[in-house]
Amino acid sequence: MAKGETTRTRILDEAVRLASRDGLQGLSIGGLAAALSLSKSGLFAHFGSKEALQVAVLEHAGARFRRLVLAPLSDIPAGRERLRTLLQGSLDWMDDPEFKGGCPIFAACFELDDREGAARDALVARQHGMKKFLVGLFGEVAGPGADLEQAAFEFRAITLAYHFATRVLRDPSARTRTWKAFEALLERVTGEPSAP
Amino acid sequence: MAKGETTRTRILDEAVRLASRDGLQGLSIGGLAAALSLSKSGLFAHFGSKEALQVAVLEHAGARFRRLVLAPLSDIPAGRERLRTLLQGSLDWMDDPEFKGGCPIFAACFELDDREGAARDALVARQHGMKKFLVGLFGEVAGPGADLEQAAFEFRAITLAYHFATRVLRDPSARTRTWKAFEALLERVTGEPSAP
Repeated sequence: MAKGETTRTRILDEAVRLASRDGLQGLSIGGLAAALSLSKSGLFAHFGSKEALQVAVLEHAGARFRRLVLAPLSDIPAGRERLRTLLQGSLDWMDDPEFKGGCPIFAACFELDDREGAARDALVARQHGMKKFLVGLFGEVAGPGADLEQAAFEFRAITLAYHFATRVLRDPSARTRTWKAFEALLERVTGEPSAP
Repeated sequence: MAKGETTRTRILDEAVRLASRDGLQGLSIGGLAAALSLSKSGLFAHFGSKEALQVAVLEHAGARFRRLVLAPLSDIPAGRERLRTLLQGSLDWMDDPEFKGGCPIFAACFELDDREGAARDALVARQHGMKKFLVGLFGEVAGPGADLEQAAFEFRAITLAYHFATRVLRDPSARTRTWKAFEALLERVTGEPSAP
């Protein structure tokens, strides 16, 4: 990587960490410069504006999600195991100790839902992409008459509930509950008992 | 109501609105004073600290939820209709135009998950109370072997997914998806087809 690219990656790694804790709105070029011992003017040269920084942070977090959670799925044959691997990867992603404030993408979703702009647009486009991807994965296992959009909606419901149970309630049974809900969903979608 | 009580209610109504949009951390005694054309010192006299204000805001939002969503349930006989009324009330609550930034309680949950203190404690206590309440309602309809804690977990999953679908994705099918997920849950808990 060129030096500029390495610096940019280092900046964005830190920015994703800070955004997980303080939110995208809480992320300032000044605060980031201080955390990294870089000059504010240097950071401005990289991103130009707070909004451009927010978009870059979302893209950086999204790229990390694709690398850590989605890429390994291509090694797994189409079927239930692929969906299980996606759920496992998603739970591990939410528990990543890098993210002091939880999944930076969910955090941004709750923060930007009512704020128009480029950051929201980037986030929503990503979420629509993820929904399409889920519809495809459920399509690989669906029984007759299964509603794939519904399955994608409920998969998201389950991951949101995990995030809530583990981070807000600190419920030690959060993973067990999450898997039980997921296997019940899989049974409905496939029309078959969900033996592993 | 005494004058002090009326003023306090007026302050907290506005504070809940602001917290829905800007988060509890974004709520300052100065900003609230400006929005209400009151003096900062007057507001300090009411709440004393930013944390006490946050706790008061959560309690005020919780009291409103009990009044608007939970109180009407006591007119409905135990059974599925009571759970449906709770879901209907919860969806209407999340769509309340007063809440520019969505449900102030969910917003606070995502904001305070990693911030220790009195506001987080108040929030978590409230959420545990709500879980107990849900376990009780599902107990009224449960078939043999039903896992009531699991049902409460999945009910929360469904409401979180509604909040996400309607506010982040602005998905016009959010209510339909939510009801479909809920009726499937009810079928599993009762062990019977979910005719209305």
